[in-house]
Amino acid sequence: MAAKNSLRVSLIRITNGILMTKVHNFSAGPAILPPSAIQESIAALQNFAGTGLSLIEISHRSKEYEAVVAEAQALVKELLNVGDDYDAVFLQGGASLQFDMIPMNFLGDNETASYLNTGVWAKRAVKEAGFFGNVNVVASSEDKNFSYIPKDYVISGDSKYFHCTSNNTIYGTEMFHFPTSPVPVVCDMSSDIFSRPINGNDFAMIYAGAQKNMGPAGTTLVVLKKDAIKKASRKIPTMLDYQIHIDNGSMYNTPSVFAIFVTLHTLRWIKSVGLEAMEQRNKAKADLLYAEIDRNGLFRGTVAPEDRSRMNVNFVLNNPELEADFFAMCKAANLSGLKGHRSVGGLRASLYNALEIESVQALVDAMKEFERIKG
Amino acid sequence: MAAKNSLRVSLIRITNGILMTKVHNFSAGPAILPPSAIQESIAALQNFAGTGLSLIEISHRSKEYEAVVAEAQALVKELLNVGDDYDAVFLQGGASLQFDMIPMNFLGDNETASYLNTGVWAKRAVKEAGFFGNVNVVASSEDKNFSYIPKDYVISGDSKYFHCTSNNTIYGTEMFHFPTSPVPVVCDMSSDIFSRPINGNDFAMIYAGAQKNMGPAGTTLVVLKKDAIKKASRKIPTMLDYQIHIDNGSMYNTPSVFAIFVTLHTLRWIKSVGLEAMEQRNKAKADLLYAEIDRNGLFRGTVAPEDRSRMNVNFVLNNPELEADFFAMCKAANLSGLKGHRSVGGLRASLYNALEIESVQALVDAMKEFERIKG
Repeated sequence: MAAKNSLRVSLIRITNGILMTKVHNFSAGPAILPPSAIQESIAALQNFAGTGLSLIEISHRSKEYEAVVAEAQALVKELLNVGDDYDAVFLQGGASLQFDMIPMNFLGDNETASYLNTGVWAKRAVKEAGFFGNVNVVASSEDKNFSYIPKDYVISGDSKYFHCTSNNTIYGTEMFHFPTSPVPVVCDMSSDIFSRPINGNDFAMIYAGAQKNMGPAGTTLVVLKKDAIKKASRKIPTMLDYQIHIDNGSMYNTPSVFAIFVTLHTLRWIKSVGLEAMEQRNKAKADLLYAEIDRNGLFRGTVAPEDRSRMNVNFVLNNPELEADFFAMCKAANLSGLKGHRSVGGLRASLYNALEIESVQALVDAMKEFERIKG
Repeated sequence: MAAKNSLRVSLIRITNGILMTKVHNFSAGPAILPPSAIQESIAALQNFAGTGLSLIEISHRSKEYEAVVAEAQALVKELLNVGDDYDAVFLQGGASLQFDMIPMNFLGDNETASYLNTGVWAKRAVKEAGFFGNVNVVASSEDKNFSYIPKDYVISGDSKYFHCTSNNTIYGTEMFHFPTSPVPVVCDMSSDIFSRPINGNDFAMIYAGAQKNMGPAGTTLVVLKKDAIKKASRKIPTMLDYQIHIDNGSMYNTPSVFAIFVTLHTLRWIKSVGLEAMEQRNKAKADLLYAEIDRNGLFRGTVAPEDRSRMNVNFVLNNPELEADFFAMCKAANLSGLKGHRSVGGLRASLYNALEIESVQALVDAMKEFERIKG
């Protein structure tokens, strides 16, 4: 029965009229997107908004495209539950450029910001902030290879802001609670934004590279509460100044046209599902996989149970020598993107919003079948 | 006869099985792209390189996508005729971010760089350089609203580098000759790159936002000669350091996946045409339109004849009151994107690589017909 399941392949993707084998896409990002966003993108590449021109051949200042950016910005604010005291813009350069722009805009030479170190990306953010001012790392989970989220740390009221990373793609930890902070909170939500309801009003700034839960690579969302963090008193190059992009509605220069379009259609899909339903859906997928990891004697999880991410499930084989065989079985079952990050190894299944539970079931089936053969 | 021509519409674009009216796309950028690049993009959104996954759902570190970036970088170097002493990378943020990155990387606090001021973008580059060091504007055509390219200026040997803009999208001027420079030359070729053969070895740095002759919005090409300009002695944030992107082959962080893919297929098309043939093709289109502007008593060009751009043809109606009528005629004839930049007004026809001469002929036909009615 398990054997039969593990070899089951679904023929549901129709491409150029050819029935394709369904690939279960566990990629850590760029990652699976809702089919509607991809279909809308294909249609717009052919004829955008009835213009007779392709989406990628038209002025970003055309009224048809300005409507795309405006709707995407409005949807972000609606989904984060924030009002007119917040601005949302789409920039370029990924979260990595935000690691620089945040302290460049907000951290003066002699000021201090507090950072929580929960993994590679948090560490990079710390490093970049050090170019501009003083950094106080309030807590770190590096002592146990970032396998947990530190708790019970203190954020100094003298800090300009507190920076954290809500989900750690590489290690598979997620913050389900944010600390009470005496200073404005800045959060990198690149890999779990819109995977569950968040009260945006708890944050002075939220940012996210689009390419996990929100869209394709090529655009970065920045949501800022007006005047929440005092601007640093240094000269800021124009393209790196948040206020310039806010004042110009993400159109100071040519934006990443296609990426914002796909993001809009991903946001529309997220809204149609609803964030509470999205959280239930994501919880069901994660519960299914973690239950199998805990049950199956061949595998074990690598993260403290209370901090296990619903987005990125990290696990290993108890006998590393079996890893190659398991990857071969995954490949045969069209289970794609399961290799752990090159810096940590093992397995990682990313279960972003658009992944269906049937894909998680296919992975669980493969794990059961592997146990039958090797256990 | 002219009347008949001006109303001719071509039914050649097939979208979703519906025969569409051909729109003649004179957009200044994002702009017309070769049909092959759009078709390849649609196919890759459905199934990228036989992976069964969409181009925008797959890891940028998959071997299939790494091959895209590697081929695009190699094609750029081949088309610019440069060897292993040059690096080509694809960044984000448009030419506008380069206005900051160039002086941040190369212009020390007490050093001076020479800039040629030929329009809005050149002026922005000057402004940003001023954040980092001293700027010497060697010449400017601002006295005549940037309607010509200054000549016979002197570039000081004390300059760190000389910066110029090869084509001015807003004003319709183009540099067909570059000055003999005692210092390394940095050129913003955003709007005429790959429109004609260029000896890349004459430049220490060439950069270009993709969204005119080379691809869609969302990626920026930077080509740098190794060690040609000494690095400034300041700390440079990681994401703004050219060497980081070079050392990581445009993959320090997630690149703008889709935009680079479309760029690759645009570069393949450019190579298949050949740069000498491309120049002849672009010259023929520009000659056809400028000849009509000079012949037709209702219109006049706004640029010094020797500096007229082949990419952006700026012209006005001698009687501005007729402008609305002419735009209405253009609209009826499916001639799109002809409004001059909001800062200068009048008309602008952008004739980038992918525009066919039949589109220019359709515009010329409309101008003749307008003369018949109003002349």
